Amino acid sequence: MPIRALVWNENEHEKSNALVRRLYPDGIHGAIAKAFAGDAAVTVETATLDMPEHGLTQDRLDRTDVLLWWGHMAHGKVDDAIVERVQKRVWEGMGLIVLHSGHFSKIFKRLMGTPCSLKWREAGEVERVWVINRNHPIAAGLPEYIEIEYEEMYGEPFTIPEPMETVFISWFEGGEVFRSGVTYQRGAGRIFYFRPGHEAYPTYHNPQVLQVIRNATHWAHNPAAPWRSVGDAPNVPHDKAPVPLEVKGPRLHADGEEGYR
Amino acid sequence: MPIRALVWNENEHEKSNALVRRLYPDGIHGAIAKAFAGDAAVTVETATLDMPEHGLTQDRLDRTDVLLWWGHMAHGKVDDAIVERVQKRVWEGMGLIVLHSGHFSKIFKRLMGTPCSLKWREAGEVERVWVINRNHPIAAGLPEYIEIEYEEMYGEPFTIPEPMETVFISWFEGGEVFRSGVTYQRGAGRIFYFRPGHEAYPTYHNPQVLQVIRNATHWAHNPAAPWRSVGDAPNVPHDKAPVPLEVKGPRLHADGEEGYR
Amino acid sequence: MPIRALVWNENEHEKSNALVRRLYPDGIHGAIAKAFAGDAAVTVETATLDMPEHGLTQDRLDRTDVLLWWGHMAHGKVDDAIVERVQKRVWEGMGLIVLHSGHFSKIFKRLMGTPCSLKWREAGEVERVWVINRNHPIAAGLPEYIEIEYEEMYGEPFTIPEPMETVFISWFEGGEVFRSGVTYQRGAGRIFYFRPGHEAYPTYHNPQVLQVIRNATHWAHNPAAPWRSVGDAPNVPHDKAPVPLEVKGPRLHADGEEGYR
Amino acid sequence: MPIRALVWNENEHEKSNALVRRLYPDGIHGAIAKAFAGDAAVTVETATLDMPEHGLTQDRLDRTDVLLWWGHMAHGKVDDAIVERVQKRVWEGMGLIVLHSGHFSKIFKRLMGTPCSLKWREAGEVERVWVINRNHPIAAGLPEYIEIEYEEMYGEPFTIPEPMETVFISWFEGGEVFRSGVTYQRGAGRIFYFRPGHEAYPTYHNPQVLQVIRNATHWAHNPAAPWRSVGDAPNVPHDKAPVPLEVKGPRLHADGEEGYR
Repeated sequence: MPIRALVWNENEHEKSNALVRRLYPDGIHGAIAKAFAGDAAVTVETATLDMPEHGLTQDRLDRTDVLLWWGHMAHGKVDDAIVERVQKRVWEGMGLIVLHSGHFSKIFKRLMGTPCSLKWREAGEVERVWVINRNHPIAAGLPEYIEIEYEEMYGEPFTIPEPMETVFISWFEGGEVFRSGVTYQRGAGRIFYFRPGHEAYPTYHNPQVLQVIRNATHWAHNPAAPWRSVGDAPNVPHDKAPVPLEVKGPRLHADGEEGYR
Repeated sequence: MPIRALVWNENEHEKSNALVRRLYPDGIHGAIAKAFAGDAAVTVETATLDMPEHGLTQDRLDRTDVLLWWGHMAHGKVDDAIVERVQKRVWEGMGLIVLHSGHFSKIFKRLMGTPCSLKWREAGEVERVWVINRNHPIAAGLPEYIEIEYEEMYGEPFTIPEPMETVFISWFEGGEVFRSGVTYQRGAGRIFYFRPGHEAYPTYHNPQVLQVIRNATHWAHNPAAPWRSVGDAPNVPHDKAPVPLEVKGPRLHADGEEGYR
Repeated sequence: MPIRALVWNENEHEKSNALVRRLYPDGIHGAIAKAFAGDAAVTVETATLDMPEHGLTQDRLDRTDVLLWWGHMAHGKVDDAIVERVQKRVWEGMGLIVLHSGHFSKIFKRLMGTPCSLKWREAGEVERVWVINRNHPIAAGLPEYIEIEYEEMYGEPFTIPEPMETVFISWFEGGEVFRSGVTYQRGAGRIFYFRPGHEAYPTYHNPQVLQVIRNATHWAHNPAAPWRSVGDAPNVPHDKAPVPLEVKGPRLHADGEEGYR
Repeated sequence: MPIRALVWNENEHEKSNALVRRLYPDGIHGAIAKAFAGDAAVTVETATLDMPEHGLTQDRLDRTDVLLWWGHMAHGKVDDAIVERVQKRVWEGMGLIVLHSGHFSKIFKRLMGTPCSLKWREAGEVERVWVINRNHPIAAGLPEYIEIEYEEMYGEPFTIPEPMETVFISWFEGGEVFRSGVTYQRGAGRIFYFRPGHEAYPTYHNPQVLQVIRNATHWAHNPAAPWRSVGDAPNVPHDKAPVPLEVKGPRLHADGEEGYR
């Protein structure tokens, strides 16, 4: 069964800015979705902020294996209840790929538990994305670095938790460095953050950038059945314990009672 | 200058339950605070849910080096704005020690980004807390394990991020295991979760448990000046870059503009 | 193309001990190899200490995707040159699964850089292997724990580096705990240590134990081309740098010189 | 009691090369030792390759809290038995700070279990060492980066295990990046690798570089008593188990027998 990818984009710059519209006539989501052209192992759909429930209904998330996220000027417009829904699906095992300015999205900050802040500069400078973890599946098919002629600079410190794996680190013409490709697991869900992709440049037409996005989608896919009960705190009665017990000492909780949350 | 510790307790069971009141006549916070009796390197204060702003005003948090957190039945009563304030202070460098049922506190779930769920059983069984990372400062002065005669069981899977360090793992009489002492860093703040401490048992009178709490407070203290700007995303102008640049290509942002959040 | 697994066993207890021979008439390697019966995605071969070059010639290792290792009484008889050869192949991307008493094998100690020591007891006690990372591919198809009626106890502290992922933790009847399933990456190679498997008990006839071994073999397989140059330290001449440079300041090395090792 | 630091240097370039001698008239070890001038909390000694037992007798290592290591052209001349001795002391809790070309030292490769390879170029280019983990004790007192006018380039991939903490990442004028400050724990010992320090440049006269070395020495110091038995595998008799047991099933080991290694 193919991996069901869903590319989410706020799709706001495209409406208000002619330059972005010219670069991405099908929207940034449309350009990202082309990463999967010719990949029979992935089916891809798109969703945008202005759809009902931002295109992220429970039913649709339940049919999504890997969600890709691009947001920037409208982070604050994303409904908190939908962010919680997405977070729960990640915990259940849905993969999540957060792109570029998505570092400040509600969903990424919630999953990291950190500010996810950084330095930035929009000067069209050269970015060289070095492969650190050479034979990692996310780096499959890449040379030793990806060179991007025009990009926005993101600089350290990037206030994220220490990654599970550091796949890419970027060098910028203006003198900064940045951890550009990092992996995490939260609940059963795999998360990959990938830095490049400023809306004012044609980054999402770069075949190597698209290859990383395609690789990461395969990597983030967890074929296990969704872990629906991931947030539950079940009580194990004393007589159902792996080693059945007599209750000793005092108790506050009555039999069968739910835990506090 | 001594470490300024603040022990926070919801202090609700103590009001409603005679057993807890008998075990902890000064409140659970009072018992925990005694961990620092005789430790001249630490000054300790306490705060409770029913104080104005839960005793966690900005000013008081700014004067706190390490916060210890005990909560259970009243997690939901903790004000979201105060949780955000505490989270910001952790990012700035304040240490945080989360105790027992605090695994489900808003502050711990926010910092972890995961459900923090687990299995549980209240049967007064034996817990044996094994030291995994023997010469870690949090384990200083301990034998190879702490044996606690009566405790509530917490069982895996404990849905936390993979820890930076695993200091303790518990064995339970009824057959379960649990990662009972784990460390993290979020922003500049060090975080330690420590499992034992059910309100129906005298765990916080156990000298070894108090020693862990004291050790962890020393470990979690970050003497660096608070990182007040930890959440900022400063723009670095092209002519102030480490390697000054000419701007190339198109731009969306005007000079001096703030980033989107 | 199927994954090419190679099960290595010292095969010494089988020669000297009737009990082991009775439990494992085809050798421990023979029993482990049966994990792949019916798995068309894996081809399996075996090798033993008494073969020329321990059955681990360069050619054979080059044709191996995942190596499984069982050793105990003959760790010291494994030739250092062959251990180095295996280590190099792991760095190049060959997966390695180290089983039970293999914790003290030369290859595991070399890859970990730590003593890999532990406590132990041979008393035929119950081991309950808890799944910690529930939807990890290595835990696919398992219930919440594997119960093994008779096993040797291994107890913490297990002196390994902090794992990349903790997949299993064991509870023992006699009161100890142990990190029984842990993952690492070294160079391009993925490593999994799995605890159960004492030669005096029928552990390798347990279908759940075999399932973990099969799962881990799939997980450890890195389909990338071998990273043959993983140990090289290439010089990048100044005029071949990504940003070509003029040489400044003094130099010790002549052009084209090899680095020191 | 002050921290007892020992700076080890192969001291070979200083003998054979007039340039290095002019830069470091007291040897590289002499320059590094000056990091502790005015730090009353550290006493410092030095040792060199040409001393008996390379100046690293068991007695001297036993009196060392933190060992600093600089080596390059003579890695192969370091005696294997002494490398094992140093490794054991790290496991017991001695801190280790590996500097620059020490990435290819026997002791670092043994503790990492990886090739520790990298790219390099000697062109006197600018290195900018960015602080990634801003309030980490190793970064105390530093600005957002250290700029070094002339340095040898080291480029990724640096084949090390994923670090416990990434403290520094370097930017190089010629276009490469490198993880320049990384931490590990092996056994009870803390390890810090710090990149700058090519023998042909005055790097060890840079006050910020010396500050990192001083900070790291404080960080690496483990005040716990040495863990002498860190490599032992003690047998726990069934009647001395935390939960005393009757022996069940067959046994291979006789009572009191040592484990195999």
